[in-house]
Parts: sequence; C-alpha cells; structure tokens
Amino acid sequence: MLNNDFSGIVTLTTDFGQEDGYAGTMKGVILNQAPQTCIVDISHNIPAFNLRQAFIVLNAAFVYFPKGTIHVMIVDPGVGSSRRHILVHAAGHYFIGPDNGVLGRIAKLHNGQTWAMDFTSIGITSASSTFHGRDVYAVAAGKILNLGYRQLVTGFIDPVLLALPEPVKTKTGFDGEILYIDNFGNLVSNLRKEHLTNNSTLVIKDAIVPIVEYYSQLDFTAPGALLNSWGYIEICVKEAQASLMLGVTIGEKISIVNSNITEEKKK
Amino acid sequence: MLNNDFSGIVTLTTDFGQEDGYAGTMKGVILNQAPQTCIVDISHNIPAFNLRQAFIVLNAAFVYFPKGTIHVMIVDPGVGSSRRHILVHAAGHYFIGPDNGVLGRIAKLHNGQTWAMDFTSIGITSASSTFHGRDVYAVAAGKILNLGYRQLVTGFIDPVLLALPEPVKTKTGFDGEILYIDNFGNLVSNLRKEHLTNNSTLVIKDAIVPIVEYYSQLDFTAPGALLNSWGYIEICVKEAQASLMLGVTIGEKISIVNSNITEEKKK
Amino acid sequence: MLNNDFSGIVTLTTDFGQEDGYAGTMKGVILNQAPQTCIVDISHNIPAFNLRQAFIVLNAAFVYFPKGTIHVMIVDPGVGSSRRHILVHAAGHYFIGPDNGVLGRIAKLHNGQTWAMDFTSIGITSASSTFHGRDVYAVAAGKILNLGYRQLVTGFIDPVLLALPEPVKTKTGFDGEILYIDNFGNLVSNLRKEHLTNNSTLVIKDAIVPIVEYYSQLDFTAPGALLNSWGYIEICVKEAQASLMLGVTIGEKISIVNSNITEEKKK
Repeated sequence: MLNNDFSGIVTLTTDFGQEDGYAGTMKGVILNQAPQTCIVDISHNIPAFNLRQAFIVLNAAFVYFPKGTIHVMIVDPGVGSSRRHILVHAAGHYFIGPDNGVLGRIAKLHNGQTWAMDFTSIGITSASSTFHGRDVYAVAAGKILNLGYRQLVTGFIDPVLLALPEPVKTKTGFDGEILYIDNFGNLVSNLRKEHLTNNSTLVIKDAIVPIVEYYSQLDFTAPGALLNSWGYIEICVKEAQASLMLGVTIGEKISIVNSNITEEKKK
Repeated sequence: MLNNDFSGIVTLTTDFGQEDGYAGTMKGVILNQAPQTCIVDISHNIPAFNLRQAFIVLNAAFVYFPKGTIHVMIVDPGVGSSRRHILVHAAGHYFIGPDNGVLGRIAKLHNGQTWAMDFTSIGITSASSTFHGRDVYAVAAGKILNLGYRQLVTGFIDPVLLALPEPVKTKTGFDGEILYIDNFGNLVSNLRKEHLTNNSTLVIKDAIVPIVEYYSQLDFTAPGALLNSWGYIEICVKEAQASLMLGVTIGEKISIVNSNITEEKKK
Repeated sequence: MLNNDFSGIVTLTTDFGQEDGYAGTMKGVILNQAPQTCIVDISHNIPAFNLRQAFIVLNAAFVYFPKGTIHVMIVDPGVGSSRRHILVHAAGHYFIGPDNGVLGRIAKLHNGQTWAMDFTSIGITSASSTFHGRDVYAVAAGKILNLGYRQLVTGFIDPVLLALPEPVKTKTGFDGEILYIDNFGNLVSNLRKEHLTNNSTLVIKDAIVPIVEYYSQLDFTAPGALLNSWGYIEICVKEAQASLMLGVTIGEKISIVNSNITEEKKK
C-alpha cells in the first residue's frame, strides 16, 4: 500500500516540549492516515521559535535515517498566517513544514527541490490557526505516505532561507562564533575541519584552548577543543558543562589562529 | 490475533517524567503481552499528582488517534490504596487507569461507559504498592489487546468525577479562569467559542486584551487572545511566555465583557 | 530475517537529554540496519556521566521487556578513548555499550557473560570520537539483530565493575544510604526487604520514619518509608518531594534499627 519512494518512517522535530501532548497528538493524526508508520522523535525540545536550532538539530540527524524518510519540522512562529507550506526533497529525504527558512536552508545545503503545498492540494478544508503541526503537516505526512508527494504539491518555489553566520577569513586564520550549546554544555562553533591546519590554535575569551581528539584526554576543569560528531569544532570541559564553566552563551566569538603567523609576530 | 475492536495503538499519559525509566518499563510489560503494539507517548510530564492537567491533555489528544485505541492514564496519587481500577469506553476509544476522576470526567463528557476491573478479572495475583502503571494497567492493556475488554471487567460503576471550574454567566458576559499553561506560556482559559459574541472583549488583570486569529498578528510584548487548537480561549504574547510577561498562574480570573452592555453603561 | 534469539526490541538508556536529536539519530542508524526494529526509550535523562544512575534505571527496567531484547546503554564519559566495547548476555537479555562498569555490574548481578567487540568485529572502519552511540553501538545493535551476536564479538572478557555502596550490618540493624532520587522526589535507599524484620524502625537525619505500605496512607507533610517497586526501601512524603521537604540528597545515611534491641537498651 505504501509508495516505494518512502521508508515508512516519519520523524518529528518541534519546539512543542514534553508536557502538553502536542507531539503525541500529531502521531495520532499520522497513524490515522497511515497506521503502519514508524514515527521517530528527533527533538521536541527545540527552544520555542528557535529556527536556527531546529535547522542545526534536524540537519545533523536526518542523514542517519533511511532514504525516503519524511521529516516533519514544526518550529512555526508564523502559524496561522499566510506563510507558505512546503515540501523539500533533498539528499533522498523528504521534509515538510512551514516556509520559514529551516527547510529552505536544508534544501540549499543539499541541492534539493522545494514545492509549495496548500490546503486544497493537501485535501483539507479547515485548520486551527494555532496548531498546523496537527491540522496541516501531520495530515500531509500521512497522505504523502499513502499517495506519494506529487499529488500533494502545487509547484516549485524558492523557499525562504535561514540566515546562518559563516566563519570569516582573517589575516591569521578564521573568526567564527558559538552556534549551539548541547545538553552536555558543549559549545558548538561554526568552525569546521576545513578551517584547521596542523598548526592551528583555538582562542575563545582571550584564552588558548588546546585541540584534542576526545573528551577524556582532557584534565578536569581545563577546556579543550575537538572536532565533534556533527563535523563542527566544539569547546568542551571533561565531564562538565563548558558553557557554565567558561560563562559562554550562543554568539560568543571563537578564533582559529594559524601558529606560523603567531611565530612571525614573536620575531 | 488482535481483537478487531482495537487499533493496535496504546497511548500513555503519566506524571512519571523522563528520568527514571518508569514509562519505558510499562512499554516492556505491554510488549511482553502484545508484541505488535504501537505505543505512543501523549505526555509523561503531567505535573506530579495533577489530575486536572492529566484530564486536559488526554482529553485534547485522544480524539486524534484512531478509534479503538487504548489510552492508559497513570496519574495516580492513590496507588496501592483501595481506589478502584476502571475501564472507560467513550467516543469509540478505550481508557484504563485508576478511578480518581480523570477518566470519569472523560466518560461523562463523551457519554461513555465505565467498568470496574480488579486483580482477579485482570488475571494478576500480586502487584507492588507503588507502581500500578507497571503491575496492573500495562498488564491490563496488553491483555485487552489479546482478549478483548469484556473478559477484563467486572461490572458497570459510576466513576469518580474530576471537578472542573465552569465559566459563570455575569450581567456583562462570562467570568472564567486560567485552567492550564502550556509549554509556550500560553494561558488556556475555560472560556470557549460559545461564550464569545462578535462584540466581546477579554479582560484579565484589569487589562483589555484584543482578540486576534493567530499569534503573529500581534505586536511583540502586547498580549492577545485567540481561540486555540483545543477550542479554548487563550491569552498569548507573540513569541514569548504570556505567563511570565503577565505574571499569571493557574486560577487567575478572566472575563468576557459584551461590548453592547459596556456601551450602555457609558450612556 | 531476524534471528530468533531476539525479541526485535532495542531499548535505549542514555544521558543524551531531549534537546539535541542524539537519541533520534541513533534510532535512524538502527532502523537503517534493521527496519522492523521496535525501539523503546528507557531514559535519555540519566544525569550526564552518571554511571550509577544508569545502572539503577536500566537494571530496574530491563527485566520487564521480553527476553531477547537488546538494551543499548550509552552513558560514556570515556567515548573516543581506548575503553572497550562490550556485549553482555544476562538473564536472557542482551546489553551493549562501553565497558565502564554499568553493564559489568548487570552481568555480575545476573550471572551473565561478557564479550568484547571491536571496530573490526562490528564491521565499521571509522567512528567519530565523540558519539559512539551513533557510530558504534547503534550499528552493532542493528547488525546483531540481523546476524546474531556471535559474529559481532571477539572473546570473553572480565568487564569493569561499577562500585555500589552496600548496606553495612550494625549492632542494631543495618546502615545504608540514599542511592537515587526519582522524579517524585522519593528517596531510594540501598536497603531492601531482606534487611527488615517485623519490628524494624527506619531512621534518617535523626528522625524515625514510620513504615507504611503505600503513599496515601501517610498524612501530608509527614515522611514515611515503604518498599518500592524496585525492591528498595524508599522514603517518601505524600504527594510531595521528600528530597526537598527533608533536605536530603544522594549519599545521605539511613539506618534500620531492630526494635528488640531498642527495647533492651531501654531496660
């Protein structure tokens, strides 16, 4: 019965939290449409309305699912307004949600295609003005599993693109910033492996942070930097919250300094 | 093997939190009895012992699941005492849990029927005195999926009914109160669409709150009121926690004032 | 396709939290390997790096799952170091994770066997140095479901054993301590039914705590002790957080005093 384009898996990434039953309600709607669906939570604890964090979490996770998975992203401050409903097909995966930049950024990063959907194309006649996760996107996910996505979309569009700060090349290396702080208090920057040389030094808050390979190489309380599992350079403290110990929040500047140039300055 | 009365889905609504593995343990018990069950979390973050919040969340969510779903509700301050075990059949859904008012209120609201269950009818010989979610209700859910519910129940009973504050008609409209505050800080009242006219004004904490259709119509920091996805009137602030910004907690009074009468007073 | 040794269920017990999509990512990896797997969360809110809490939660939950379930435990402060990867077979269940004492303690408690695994035996060529839950253990779980575990392991080893404080026999009974505090603020000690006589008294913070059977037997605000659903003696306060009301944290001493000896002292 299911279209072969799909894995039969639907993931959910939202800012709904765990208290109110909002995510569970969406699952009910999906299972009503497509009872065999395997529904997997990526996160329901994206900070409320935080589009950047939704992008970072979903973009880091989705590729580990089977191709043909439908990823529903509901961080949606514009719910009920005229913002568009979109479907993105990128890297062999499907994404549905509001057109607020998150899915557009995923489409751009993975050379995907973006379609618009509307109530008529989805086949719904009304929706609440505050919970499109339930009334629009969960319905769309279930219908796509049954009918394929081409029946659900109207036409190609250029999606809204989320702004993300990019590292800036400097005389001595790169200036970046902390993009994300995870559950362990690790400080995830927008600097990546490609910005490092064999002689790079990390500087945050005027302190040099040694680069290590894994957490337990560090001494307790002394921060270190490593390449994390998302491919970003992160600042960490062994078995502790780097964010608290260093007093760092999102947006803090972090620099890569190429040591050759540092040497020259000393001369 | 499964009885055709059932969707094969079991939902869980509890105050167990996410830390201790209590909900996961219940899932193990259910899967031991009925391995093909699709188990969906509605919420495990009902505030401890909060029967009203359990009712509001479960009542808002259950109807979106396929009919024949079994909803297990374990907010159970009387666990281990002589409070009864019940099964409610209402609106095509099944509910099991302790007889403490939550499921009785759902039965009454949806003209359902309530049966008692006991250890003998469920087929258990002993249970811990602190975790009937695991030892009684998860077992019952699994057995009902296999055997049907009629074998598990003893007879009809009148369930305990949860008290819920109802709006009161006033000279100028209705007085209600804040029943629930969600993850976004939205203030959910017990006032509904039926209490509004085309010329209604919402008043909370001596301030008039404009009625809008969706969140992003509001200016930042200015509160508004809208009809939410559960059918209640809620007070919200655009992309912010209304509860914090207005200093409102559960129980705060909120009034609907009919503007015609306001006009008359002015004359 | 699945090996008959297995239930087809994989459980997850981690300190990943709910925010970052780490647990969801592991589920994607498992479903990529074994699409029919039923994945159940035991807890993702083990406090970061807290091996003892991971042991207590997993050990209390796993036995309620069908035999042949694979339990993946990822509290892993040594991730990326040379700490070993292990598979434990105990009590008819399978456990995989890092060799840091948690699974070794389960193996010892249930007379299980412990095998080592390595990248070659698992069939992976590289892994991040910070997320072996995704790159090593989720892959291993999926492969075990498909191939059986014998192909994934290298040989028997003696696992690391988590230290757990044991009750100490005293002249008048037993001295124990608070091991765990649950979501309800209940204080779970390391004292068990076997340490009680019919005339035992519980003492914590120089106060005698009456022993009851279930929570609602207590008056509000007065603490009590009971045998909880994990088989431990716990201190509780009716519909309140005993930890907050008594100012007790993990490690607090708790004693069982045998009343006969108390009587003798009085003479």
